Amino acid sequence: MAETAAQFPEVQGGGSLIVAWQVKGKTVLVVGGGEVAAGRILHCLNADALVTVVSPAARLNPEVAYRVAQGQVAHVDRNFEPSDLDGADMVLVAVDDPAASTAIWQLCKARRIPANIADVPPECDFYFGSVHRDGPLQIMVSTNGKGPRLASMIRKFIAKQLPSDAGRAIETVGQLRVRLRQIAPRPEEGPKRMAWMSKVSEAYPWDEMCGLSEEDIGNLLRFYPSGKVPALDELKAMRANPGADKEAFDGSFGFSVGA
Amino acid sequence: MAETAAQFPEVQGGGSLIVAWQVKGKTVLVVGGGEVAAGRILHCLNADALVTVVSPAARLNPEVAYRVAQGQVAHVDRNFEPSDLDGADMVLVAVDDPAASTAIWQLCKARRIPANIADVPPECDFYFGSVHRDGPLQIMVSTNGKGPRLASMIRKFIAKQLPSDAGRAIETVGQLRVRLRQIAPRPEEGPKRMAWMSKVSEAYPWDEMCGLSEEDIGNLLRFYPSGKVPALDELKAMRANPGADKEAFDGSFGFSVGA
Repeated sequence: MAETAAQFPEVQGGGSLIVAWQVKGKTVLVVGGGEVAAGRILHCLNADALVTVVSPAARLNPEVAYRVAQGQVAHVDRNFEPSDLDGADMVLVAVDDPAASTAIWQLCKARRIPANIADVPPECDFYFGSVHRDGPLQIMVSTNGKGPRLASMIRKFIAKQLPSDAGRAIETVGQLRVRLRQIAPRPEEGPKRMAWMSKVSEAYPWDEMCGLSEEDIGNLLRFYPSGKVPALDELKAMRANPGADKEAFDGSFGFSVGA
Repeated sequence: MAETAAQFPEVQGGGSLIVAWQVKGKTVLVVGGGEVAAGRILHCLNADALVTVVSPAARLNPEVAYRVAQGQVAHVDRNFEPSDLDGADMVLVAVDDPAASTAIWQLCKARRIPANIADVPPECDFYFGSVHRDGPLQIMVSTNGKGPRLASMIRKFIAKQLPSDAGRAIETVGQLRVRLRQIAPRPEEGPKRMAWMSKVSEAYPWDEMCGLSEEDIGNLLRFYPSGKVPALDELKAMRANPGADKEAFDGSFGFSVGA
């Protein structure tokens, strides 16, 4: 029995289920227009949500007022009314009124709309964390409610450790995958394509992928038919002008991380 | 107008809304019992969910079978039936049957149950990412579907950069907050408590908090009445045996990060 258990990861309770919620084109209702609401709104816009803010205009903070003026969010210029929930896919409440907040939470639960009432953990289907963003890369730090300020410090610490163009590594891999499918489109080649992509990601440390240019990707793809993946140095030596960005590549792992 | 815009963070679309979903005591239905299901199940158990797996016993992978045998999850030994959705707060589908998957997705949407159909992005309310866990600290890396393998590499990279006991820093801050409330319980002291906690987090780099002992926390709290926060060296010098863990503290910022 002990042997069986050792094979599998042990459960470590007390965490959250951290997920990347898809709100693109979905309606997110934000009740309140203060500083907390401003942060929530930006998170939602960064995820391509359709945001509606319900709050008297006089109580909008400058950032929220700016986004309303720019047409980035829709605005309902009054206090919350239950009919505001019609068509809402998610509700975020950030008002200094515990009774009103609780009432909205209960309406959301009756309608099965996921909701977050700021500063009231029991009235939250989900919590927010501190998010680092770099193109397609998102890194979210949660302390599970134990230290929001620490979450932000840890997020900044992580951002400093990452290569400055970490997001580009992801774009590069995405681009490689797309171009590979162009040169080897047949469905029956799927396993070969997957095996080769897997070999690529084993051959190159992920942070070195940031530095690969379109030319490099083109050169790399020439190896696909053979199923081989060249060493990184070999790939760079194939450049028309191999010395051009020497500085960016000759550094050790530590170098590329330091910046 | 240009001036106004510069004041506020620019919207960077194309991301997800990353959130820490609260599934403690909630019912998560997992349809399928293969390798992908095993990963999902562990995520859910780590977040204290009540997990029910629907899958013929013969198709459970060893890890899922182990968790069923241990009573960590409930098991329904057959294929999915619509009534399985009764009482489900979330549904995760990981079966190699696109038609069945889509049918389950549609049932979930009709009932407004958040759902994830593995490998079918348009049939997902949310995606999973790669998660680093250290006690109350959770760090989730998402590439927004562009490179799941890269997400896992970046997660490992981050884990290596973090101090080995980063989770402890969060526990320590949590403990400090609890003990502060014990020695200064009056509600009217709230602003003073908050201001002092804020001073503490400004005075000490977060990763140095990992190294503070209960004795240090006790010593630190003696400064609260004055509203002051001692320098870290000063705090360490107050230890009954200041040289005891010299090695752990004399390193620079770089040292504590390297391990």
